[in-house]
Amino acid sequence: MAERNAAPRKSDRTRAAILSAAREQFAANTYDKVSIRAIAAQAGVDPALVMRYFTNKETLFACAVNVDLRLPDLRSEPPTTWGAVHATHFIDLWEGPDRNEALPILIRSAVTHEWAAERAREIFTVQIRGMLESTMPADEAGRRAALAGSQLLGLALARYVLRLPGIAERPAAEIIADVAPTLQRYLTADLP
Amino acid sequence: MAERNAAPRKSDRTRAAILSAAREQFAANTYDKVSIRAIAAQAGVDPALVMRYFTNKETLFACAVNVDLRLPDLRSEPPTTWGAVHATHFIDLWEGPDRNEALPILIRSAVTHEWAAERAREIFTVQIRGMLESTMPADEAGRRAALAGSQLLGLALARYVLRLPGIAERPAAEIIADVAPTLQRYLTADLP
Repeated sequence: MAERNAAPRKSDRTRAAILSAAREQFAANTYDKVSIRAIAAQAGVDPALVMRYFTNKETLFACAVNVDLRLPDLRSEPPTTWGAVHATHFIDLWEGPDRNEALPILIRSAVTHEWAAERAREIFTVQIRGMLESTMPADEAGRRAALAGSQLLGLALARYVLRLPGIAERPAAEIIADVAPTLQRYLTADLP
Repeated sequence: MAERNAAPRKSDRTRAAILSAAREQFAANTYDKVSIRAIAAQAGVDPALVMRYFTNKETLFACAVNVDLRLPDLRSEPPTTWGAVHATHFIDLWEGPDRNEALPILIRSAVTHEWAAERAREIFTVQIRGMLESTMPADEAGRRAALAGSQLLGLALARYVLRLPGIAERPAAEIIADVAPTLQRYLTADLP
């Protein structure tokens, strides 16, 4: 009985170690250059065990980059603060104490893997669109959510992937202050 | 004499055919999946000829994606129009009659190849920073150029690569009208 309870915990730890090693490998290399063998070696397990848990590299990649982010519900905040709330939360996802280590891999994968692109669309627009749709027509909600998503995608690319000077090295609070008014306009102001 | 004049023209055409085939291959596949053999077949030449002209896949890729874009000099325009001028020119680079076919490949490559990232930094901020530096302190110019670059990078990713609904399917004129005020603020308005 004790053994039956202990077993899942060990396999959970092994699984987590493999996923953690996979994230490091996929963050450091392009998809094609990463091998199951290298991930297994870094996790300290046999490659056959990696295959038993994740079947193949494609599935392991999908699991490693599986980002399920809940954005804060803007509808519970005063509309005049939406730009700042959205910007602050987004920067926290990348830099805060509970930052999501899979995000940089997701952004890089989104340009080459359709399912990563689909996940990025979900994170960058679908949730916000859903929140806006209860207060305005669907096409307006879609337009506003996509515009806000475009600024956040570009911020992620500029600050974390391409590391553009002028945006990569500045404190998070300054970036939030610069970008929040853009999001505020896209989310709530009159658009042309 | 006639032959000596004709020869360079034939080699220029061959070179252009190889580059055009390379762009199509690199646009449709990730770097690692593209082969010199496939590019040669599409261009209708021998693989050995591709190697003679471009030495290896890395060099061929760099030449195929070598985007040398001159942005319009904002200083010759009234500052109140900079946002609209910059947005319009950027959309034209992607969608206008003289659009640059290498741009989508460059954006996708920038997340995996450092030299493509460097070229993207040049296109998205360095030129604009240079224009702004003659009218304001260098660090302010760098900050404004990077903010504008982040919005344009995100727009490119959202509209042309991820094809976010709400931004991908709308007419260019609407996108320009939506985004121009953001660029205008980043380039000329008082920042926090």
